[in-house]
Amino acid sequence: MGDKIMKKSISILMAGLLSIAAVTAFAADQGVPFPEGYRNWLHAKSMLIQPGHALENPFQGLHHVYANKQAEAGLKTGKYADGSVLVFDLLQYQEKDKTIQEGERKLVGVMLKDAKKFAATGGWGFEGFAGNSKTERLVKDGGTSCFACHASEQKTDYVFSQYRP
Amino acid sequence: MGDKIMKKSISILMAGLLSIAAVTAFAADQGVPFPEGYRNWLHAKSMLIQPGHALENPFQGLHHVYANKQAEAGLKTGKYADGSVLVFDLLQYQEKDKTIQEGERKLVGVMLKDAKKFAATGGWGFEGFAGNSKTERLVKDGGTSCFACHASEQKTDYVFSQYRP
Repeated sequence: MGDKIMKKSISILMAGLLSIAAVTAFAADQGVPFPEGYRNWLHAKSMLIQPGHALENPFQGLHHVYANKQAEAGLKTGKYADGSVLVFDLLQYQEKDKTIQEGERKLVGVMLKDAKKFAATGGWGFEGFAGNSKTERLVKDGGTSCFACHASEQKTDYVFSQYRP
Repeated sequence: MGDKIMKKSISILMAGLLSIAAVTAFAADQGVPFPEGYRNWLHAKSMLIQPGHALENPFQGLHHVYANKQAEAGLKTGKYADGSVLVFDLLQYQEKDKTIQEGERKLVGVMLKDAKKFAATGGWGFEGFAGNSKTERLVKDGGTSCFACHASEQKTDYVFSQYRP
């Protein structure tokens, strides 16, 4: 291969890689930030999903749902103002000695309400962060698959969790 | 039985009942108030206790531990200031369709730190409230039996829970 052809091939390859990187970056950040401070928000409820459940991958584990102040109001009224954030904090668990105990964090799921920005997915932006990372984003389809499942909950503005005192 | 004897018997009976009531009232309130607002405190951790566990009665269920601001600092430093409150919120659970879901509340356990007042039980006052009641108290022995179990955790000021981010 001549030098010129080699250089051209490399440029084309680089351009291709940059395009992929750009698309990936776009797909990986829909504008739902990591929910800083959520561990001090209202703990709305918890649930454990076992192996064999339809949502086993990726949701098998013990999850806790947290709500910021706007989402707390939403849980109580059924209407979520823009800025409402719900967090789905998914932990592994260990079953031993007649107990089930919390393990490592698997992912942090986030729903952020912005009726205009996320109109295509019910007014909610969906994101997931891997393990304890605040930057490794898991949602690659703009939240379409998340919303497909949440769509059944239209009556409660697409939120599964219900307030309990 | 003559009227006089009858009256005397009734007085003795009444005095006896009043004494019992007084003792019960004393035994039923060690000065640990219901932890108003705890559902908005830090959710420290959760754990599930299954049938067959040594603490099955009364702690079988899914429990969530909540900490007020002072207790949150205590979880992080290992030292609990007076006024620290930890809540053990115990719910029933239902296992179905490859999930474990929260059920009704069984009891609300409370630890209140007051080093002087509760010196006999490691500086902690212990109380339990039945179900969703804020008045039906469960601890009848001044917290002695609670403390007997917590005594193993002297290194962390008698607190089992550990902080996790």
